[in-house]
Amino acid sequence: MARIAVVGGDGIGTEVTAQARKVIDAVLPGVDYNEYDLGARLYHRTGEVLPQSVEDELAGHDAILLGAIGDPTVPPGVLERGLLLKLRFDFDQYVNLRPSKLWPGTTSPLSGVKAGEIDMVVVREGTEGLYVGAGGVLHKNTPAEIATEESLNTRHGVERVVRDAFARAQRRDRRHVTLVHKTNVLTHAGNLWSRTFAAVAAEFPDVTTEYQHIDAASMFMVSNPQRFDVVVTDNLFGDILTDIAAAVTGGIGMAASGSVNPERVYPSTFEPVHGSAPDIAGKGIADPAAAILSAALLLEHLGKLDEARRVTEAVAAEVASRAPGAPLRTAEVGDRVAAAAA
Amino acid sequence: MARIAVVGGDGIGTEVTAQARKVIDAVLPGVDYNEYDLGARLYHRTGEVLPQSVEDELAGHDAILLGAIGDPTVPPGVLERGLLLKLRFDFDQYVNLRPSKLWPGTTSPLSGVKAGEIDMVVVREGTEGLYVGAGGVLHKNTPAEIATEESLNTRHGVERVVRDAFARAQRRDRRHVTLVHKTNVLTHAGNLWSRTFAAVAAEFPDVTTEYQHIDAASMFMVSNPQRFDVVVTDNLFGDILTDIAAAVTGGIGMAASGSVNPERVYPSTFEPVHGSAPDIAGKGIADPAAAILSAALLLEHLGKLDEARRVTEAVAAEVASRAPGAPLRTAEVGDRVAAAAA
Ligand SMILES: CC(C)[C@H](C(=O)O)[C@@H](O)C(=O)O
Ligand SMILES: CC(C)[C@H](C(=O)O)[C@@H](O)C(=O)O
Repeated sequence: MARIAVVGGDGIGTEVTAQARKVIDAVLPGVDYNEYDLGARLYHRTGEVLPQSVEDELAGHDAILLGAIGDPTVPPGVLERGLLLKLRFDFDQYVNLRPSKLWPGTTSPLSGVKAGEIDMVVVREGTEGLYVGAGGVLHKNTPAEIATEESLNTRHGVERVVRDAFARAQRRDRRHVTLVHKTNVLTHAGNLWSRTFAAVAAEFPDVTTEYQHIDAASMFMVSNPQRFDVVVTDNLFGDILTDIAAAVTGGIGMAASGSVNPERVYPSTFEPVHGSAPDIAGKGIADPAAAILSAALLLEHLGKLDEARRVTEAVAAEVASRAPGAPLRTAEVGDRVAAAAA
Repeated sequence: MARIAVVGGDGIGTEVTAQARKVIDAVLPGVDYNEYDLGARLYHRTGEVLPQSVEDELAGHDAILLGAIGDPTVPPGVLERGLLLKLRFDFDQYVNLRPSKLWPGTTSPLSGVKAGEIDMVVVREGTEGLYVGAGGVLHKNTPAEIATEESLNTRHGVERVVRDAFARAQRRDRRHVTLVHKTNVLTHAGNLWSRTFAAVAAEFPDVTTEYQHIDAASMFMVSNPQRFDVVVTDNLFGDILTDIAAAVTGGIGMAASGSVNPERVYPSTFEPVHGSAPDIAGKGIADPAAAILSAALLLEHLGKLDEARRVTEAVAAEVASRAPGAPLRTAEVGDRVAAAAA
């Protein structure tokens, strides 16, 4: 039986993961859950973000269902680096998976773009680049202060995520991969990415490829998002691109993500892209769609493909059935999706 | 008399700078021009990108009017690092200025956004960050290969560009500055930027401020670009954000930029954001609007405020008068704008 760790986290996080759990129960009864209270509360109570004993316990699970981490009362970086990024690095979650689709019932801010026309997945590298935390500060608080950030990229790390992207593209209709980087400025890392991309592409002759600079890709995300199928890119560029992709598909309401260790040596984390939204927390009005779609990615990762498909379709149908402007109750959305997916 | 160096460059670059020059002549007769043939042609002929003697000559000018640099026949990075970025660094062009406006006659891809509603200027740092070229490769072409890129940020460099942004905001109606960074991940550089921003903000009590992470800012550029007035950010984030800003204001057709050394110790470079567009080069159909608007930024930089305003208004009127879908002749646009601005 699957063992899932649930980290509701801050703000609306606990509310939306409760619905995701409800939906998983409807399609896959008997899952063994363990809830972990991490985030701003734990930090304020104990000063700790992720105790080693908790991380060891998390490691024993098949997957982690995460709500949202982050609170204005905690200094920037503490929870992000100490929990979200720590899990990505310690659990070698090198495939940061972010599908973006314009679902029926959602509206793109782009005029003339219709449901179904945007359908892409960004495969963002999750364990390298500028996210490694390399860097420092010298002569702090003096006019001579300098601060550095270093992007570290390995052939090992780039090759495995690029190969994952090609394998995914091969299973999709359009079989197209776009590499996004900034090879004309970041020539060292850009060259490693380009050469590795070309080498892996040779293993997938049935997949077509394209390269775009991050600035051009960001522009195309707005002017022509339909052109993207699978996008592979580094950690920081992926962070930015997926938020633009979310924006053009109607906001982060439907944006799901997985931080995946494909080999399943470590648990993978599944979480909505949205934040903890402290302003609406506790009111029962947060939209759990992205959290439930993240649960579908989790099911897919565990090999429960039929269950994953049913959940995704149930969310899509629920969202399509919403009356524009009608108030939304978190638990009712969960109930409807669970009933439809069961 | 003003001395302007003209670097038409590659592809459509020479065609659009010719129109920009025509318009400058119409409002400021007697400018002393020197044309420099730099770009792919020189590189293929001589292997050189920017001979020292040419750079020394450029240094003797009041400003540089640049068309476009870049050609598919030259390896990525060679012309960019060797010319564009070299000028920004050697001439200490630390204010990379990129206004974005939704002009009458242009259409945003965003539905419901009307002309005049988007009006922002991104002040992008131009001499630091990931653009410095620090980094390298180890064990190239082996499985052990690593590649690094280092972002260097100084208090000196951050403070001067942040102060420039505040001074600009003070001269605008809304008097608002948004700092964009990624302080929750790039904690070292992010902290330097945040502290410096706060210190400079204290000198400008009449300017309101806001902070956004780059991923959130990219999303807001799409979902609510109206909220931005002045944006200040680092070199790479500015590169990305300004292309999104160009996209939501109807593409790069109207996107002008200046790489400015505000003290005028060195010449500043003014150029359209668009590239060399080799596919339409030589046909006389490239839109010179962005190049002419860049010339307006040049005039403004030289203190010719009335001339700059007339040129900007003439471009706006010309663009607003265009019949949708009608073919465009580069030289005719230049003629019309020159006549109207004179
Ligand atoms: C919260 C932050 C550290 C994180 C990131 O930058 O990866 C978030 O923006 C995301 O996209 O998951
Ligand atoms: C061509 C390239 C080096 C340049 C940059 O990245 O700054 C361009 O994208 C720009 O925005 O001026």
